[in-house]
Amino acid sequence: MTVDFWFEFASTYSYPAAMRIEDVAARNGVSIRWRPFLLGPIFKELGWNDSPFNLQPAKGRYMWRDLERLCASLQIPFTRPTSFPRNGLLAARIACHFSAEPWLPAFVRAVYRANFAEDRDIGSCDTLESCLQAAHQDPAPILALADDPAVKDALRAQTQEAMRLGVFGAPFFVVGGNELFWGNDRLEDAIAWCVAAGASTS
Amino acid sequence: MTVDFWFEFASTYSYPAAMRIEDVAARNGVSIRWRPFLLGPIFKELGWNDSPFNLQPAKGRYMWRDLERLCASLQIPFTRPTSFPRNGLLAARIACHFSAEPWLPAFVRAVYRANFAEDRDIGSCDTLESCLQAAHQDPAPILALADDPAVKDALRAQTQEAMRLGVFGAPFFVVGGNELFWGNDRLEDAIAWCVAAGASTS
Repeated sequence: MTVDFWFEFASTYSYPAAMRIEDVAARNGVSIRWRPFLLGPIFKELGWNDSPFNLQPAKGRYMWRDLERLCASLQIPFTRPTSFPRNGLLAARIACHFSAEPWLPAFVRAVYRANFAEDRDIGSCDTLESCLQAAHQDPAPILALADDPAVKDALRAQTQEAMRLGVFGAPFFVVGGNELFWGNDRLEDAIAWCVAAGASTS
Repeated sequence: MTVDFWFEFASTYSYPAAMRIEDVAARNGVSIRWRPFLLGPIFKELGWNDSPFNLQPAKGRYMWRDLERLCASLQIPFTRPTSFPRNGLLAARIACHFSAEPWLPAFVRAVYRANFAEDRDIGSCDTLESCLQAAHQDPAPILALADDPAVKDALRAQTQEAMRLGVFGAPFFVVGGNELFWGNDRLEDAIAWCVAAGASTS
């Protein structure tokens, strides 16, 4: 029983989802496939050159307040970033290439914490170095890989796959390759769907 | 303790919210102010001439599947309307003018059922007649009022107030005039916020 977790490091509602998903999945005997991708190319297809939370000020104001309330109720630390959206490209390349490594979830959470709890620039190598150290990895060889053409291509292909699936925001949870759940609010529903699907086929 | 319930008759996620809100509020000792408005003028300000669920096909496909799953889990009947969005103008004028009447909630639910369970044209007088009858009202004098300039102006003013509050979709729940909750998913949170605010001031 596996849920595909599609996330983008700049995405606000991906933050609580990323902090919670491993626990919720483990409690239900579900495993997670970590699928980082980029929202930029998807928004570009829609004719947008920025996050809808910046393009629509009322929606943006609402989101920041909602996220603040949500993190408080989930007891997840939150500081509104002074810059939004931050550039998650390097982090996404790393997470895509190392997506099956046991240290990957700790790295993903460290990057989200840097962005949404510590107000740090997740586009910088300095920040990613400390995030890799938080996941007990030697940063230098991993950061060097982020410029490898094959690593870049893998993230591009993964973003294309997100589009093909019908992903239009983040986070998305996908069960069985075609049952889509959008947003942190749907995490528990996706896990329950996965458990029910597993029970009906076993 | 009062929650303002901002809804639009064409809005898909307003449907489960409208069907549930009276029960959820009553169980918590909260009263509801019914605030119909139109999304059209709000979307127009954003440069949109249609629902985002039509303008963004992936988002639309997702929404219909999500709504189907949601209604099934809430045991609310659902049939995907053959036309979307339907024209809720007349229904909204009536609901705005009679918003404080004891029969109003039954009328609102009848209109939503017509749109999202019975696939009927809620823009037609025939449908609204039967919705008013379902709320035990004589349709003729009420429908006649829908062309009254003062009734039209009241709905325009209410839509302006929605914009001023920062409403950019539907449904919205507003507590204390400035705490906003967006979407059927946030109904319980809004009611809980209202109860907590009431407890802290009493």
